[in-house]
Amino acid sequence: MIRPGSEHWSSAMYLMRVGPAGAEKPAVRSGDGYVDVSDLTPDFDAAFFERGGLEALREASATGTVIPLADQRVGAPIARPHQIICIGLNYSDHAAETGQAVPSEPIVFNKAPNTLVGPYDEVHIPRRSAKTDWEVELGVVVGRRCRYLKDERAAQDAIAGYVVVNDVSEREFQIERGGQWVKGKSAETFNPCGPYLVTPDEIPDVGALDMWLDVNGTRRQKGSTATMLFGPAFLVHYLSQFMVLEPGDLINTGTPPGVGMGHNPPIYLRPGDVMELGIERLGGQRQRVVAAP
Amino acid sequence: MIRPGSEHWSSAMYLMRVGPAGAEKPAVRSGDGYVDVSDLTPDFDAAFFERGGLEALREASATGTVIPLADQRVGAPIARPHQIICIGLNYSDHAAETGQAVPSEPIVFNKAPNTLVGPYDEVHIPRRSAKTDWEVELGVVVGRRCRYLKDERAAQDAIAGYVVVNDVSEREFQIERGGQWVKGKSAETFNPCGPYLVTPDEIPDVGALDMWLDVNGTRRQKGSTATMLFGPAFLVHYLSQFMVLEPGDLINTGTPPGVGMGHNPPIYLRPGDVMELGIERLGGQRQRVVAAP
Repeated sequence: MIRPGSEHWSSAMYLMRVGPAGAEKPAVRSGDGYVDVSDLTPDFDAAFFERGGLEALREASATGTVIPLADQRVGAPIARPHQIICIGLNYSDHAAETGQAVPSEPIVFNKAPNTLVGPYDEVHIPRRSAKTDWEVELGVVVGRRCRYLKDERAAQDAIAGYVVVNDVSEREFQIERGGQWVKGKSAETFNPCGPYLVTPDEIPDVGALDMWLDVNGTRRQKGSTATMLFGPAFLVHYLSQFMVLEPGDLINTGTPPGVGMGHNPPIYLRPGDVMELGIERLGGQRQRVVAAP
Repeated sequence: MIRPGSEHWSSAMYLMRVGPAGAEKPAVRSGDGYVDVSDLTPDFDAAFFERGGLEALREASATGTVIPLADQRVGAPIARPHQIICIGLNYSDHAAETGQAVPSEPIVFNKAPNTLVGPYDEVHIPRRSAKTDWEVELGVVVGRRCRYLKDERAAQDAIAGYVVVNDVSEREFQIERGGQWVKGKSAETFNPCGPYLVTPDEIPDVGALDMWLDVNGTRRQKGSTATMLFGPAFLVHYLSQFMVLEPGDLINTGTPPGVGMGHNPPIYLRPGDVMELGIERLGGQRQRVVAAP
């Protein structure tokens, strides 16, 4: 929680983007409201992170006017990233529920960056989909360009913050339609993100955060980042050996047990369903499910 | 070939980007030179394609001053796209050489968009790589937002043009390091593209283009788009059922036989090697291979 005027304010921050889809303004959360920082940066995008915008913001935003959030739309807390990178089977208990072996090194795949939406936006079931599924995940936002990072410490320094992500997935498209997983991960609205980007100094131990997801009020996923196989710093270091990470890139770090596919029989989303999900210290999301128009 | 003053000029176009990496200017090829069109558009990016920039350019560029290319650098002919989508095993004769079955529907994967470089830029062998390989491919550039396209005809209308791509791949990273292919496709410099984006009206039959790739003067790949399993319009229509394609997105449509991995024993790239490749009507590329610094 940001407390204006306290010493806390000057270190940890909760970044938000507020306004209509495609016209969000960058903001910093303050209590139940926010401080508009669009005079300091047009957006929380690659250019913002690259020029050390986070540090500049720490100084500046403490002085802004607090605006009540009221019923304004909350967007994803980052601009559309260069990449959304996903890590597969990264929780030992989720690997078990899918009947697959624990991977010896990270499984990496992508989803289309234009899947990014706000934390309370509607999620579309794609046309001809029967197996749309949920996945609460810890999202890691990259804060600087990462190329052949030396070690996990350098990787930790390159993390701008953490965010809640729903890595929505279509299991038939992902698994039964040939080849690679991206096909079932990239439909429009498939990556609700937010409400906040929380800076690392606000999270005492990223490896001990409870996470949950409810569908229509029934708890479906319940887990903790404690069962993650490869943690955020490991992943950022690892990925930087294979590709160059750009500032603002988003890494979905995998999901704990309880996805629809893991139930017996499987449970998939239907129009009218409501997903509620969250991660300790990072806030909560709520999405109504509708058929793709 | 663009012939200023002829009726040809007003239909087909060869788009280029000329200048230092990161500071390329948009241009239209004219004979051995080019017309700078940076007063008409800052770049060949999503905004350019979305607002129908190609059509506006047809009218305007016929009147520009022709500048000799001389020894200026040629960049990729499009700005960094929202996505680079790749199609796997899309040539019947390449599927055979890898010992894999012909896919019943397209295999889709991604590579990082920041792999995009110019057609004559150096290609880096990643650190700790022993199996860096080549793939000449027909690249398809998407000209408008594509969402649940009705049929292949609508997909054909959404194609801005064609381009030569070298879909450079690290086979150990791609196949032997767990999971999904993106890991071996996304290293820096792994997607030389260009020299031109050629509009479809310049290509009488995109399904009958010869393609080739030489390493150090030895022909390694020799094929034709005639053995493609899924053609450009099929792919654009197909992909639009699973994701929303953005204007300026690039689709690498797969490679014909003769990749390094397909030789017995396999042949991989070494620092100092030179790749030369091309596709009929779309021009040629040349890259020197160096170790990643």
